Amino acid sequence: MDRIPILKMGPFLLVTIQVDMHDRLALSLQDDLAERIASTEARGVLIDISSLEIVDSFIGRVLANIAAVSRVLDAQTVVVGMQPAVAITLVELGLSLPGVRTALNVERGMELLRAALESETLGSDGDASTAF
Amino acid sequence: MDRIPILKMGPFLLVTIQVDMHDRLALSLQDDLAERIASTEARGVLIDISSLEIVDSFIGRVLANIAAVSRVLDAQTVVVGMQPAVAITLVELGLSLPGVRTALNVERGMELLRAALESETLGSDGDASTAF
Repeated sequence: MDRIPILKMGPFLLVTIQVDMHDRLALSLQDDLAERIASTEARGVLIDISSLEIVDSFIGRVLANIAAVSRVLDAQTVVVGMQPAVAITLVELGLSLPGVRTALNVERGMELLRAALESETLGSDGDASTAF
Repeated sequence: MDRIPILKMGPFLLVTIQVDMHDRLALSLQDDLAERIASTEARGVLIDISSLEIVDSFIGRVLANIAAVSRVLDAQTVVVGMQPAVAITLVELGLSLPGVRTALNVERGMELLRAALESETLGSDGDASTAF
């Protein structure tokens, strides 16, 4: 198992993290996601971490990096499904996932992305989204 | 890692299989799915196997069992994302995944489920779907 599958759902990409992230896997996920965002012209990325029981500073950094790379490629990132215990531990450790938006579950995350996309389409001149 | 996360997407449930299935994991997935179908009144199950490089008779049986249990609970199952090499091997081995519908990717699978749901809603008197 050396790749985390990336599923395309309309204008968004969905990633479910189920396995322990090690350095190489995190890097390959970041690369794959960047490539898929470019090839599918995706506007949002949903990362489900509902099966993670621990989110340490390494995972936090991976999520923040993915969000930063996606942002540069004009896609927004939402982390969904965080277990309550994980949220408590994160705050206790002082890790606040800077630059990463969160939602309770995939459905809410998708609503968030759709709303962001709509407000963007209404208020922008669309120069970045048409460049390819 | 002893559970495969099940994501709710509207009236459907989505499962991404990323890890090697062993007996216990397969059984717990089957139990969890049956429970989630009942609690969310889901009408369809999408199982993504795009990261599986081998589908042997054990996995084939697990998929067929999940499809059979879902059917009894009034939900349809679609297996999506099968790699071309896996499909070739399956046919060569004489495993045809009886009772399991397949689609190229999650989007096509969802279209299939939606179409099935619509034709069902048009043609039924809806007695099974209102029982709870």
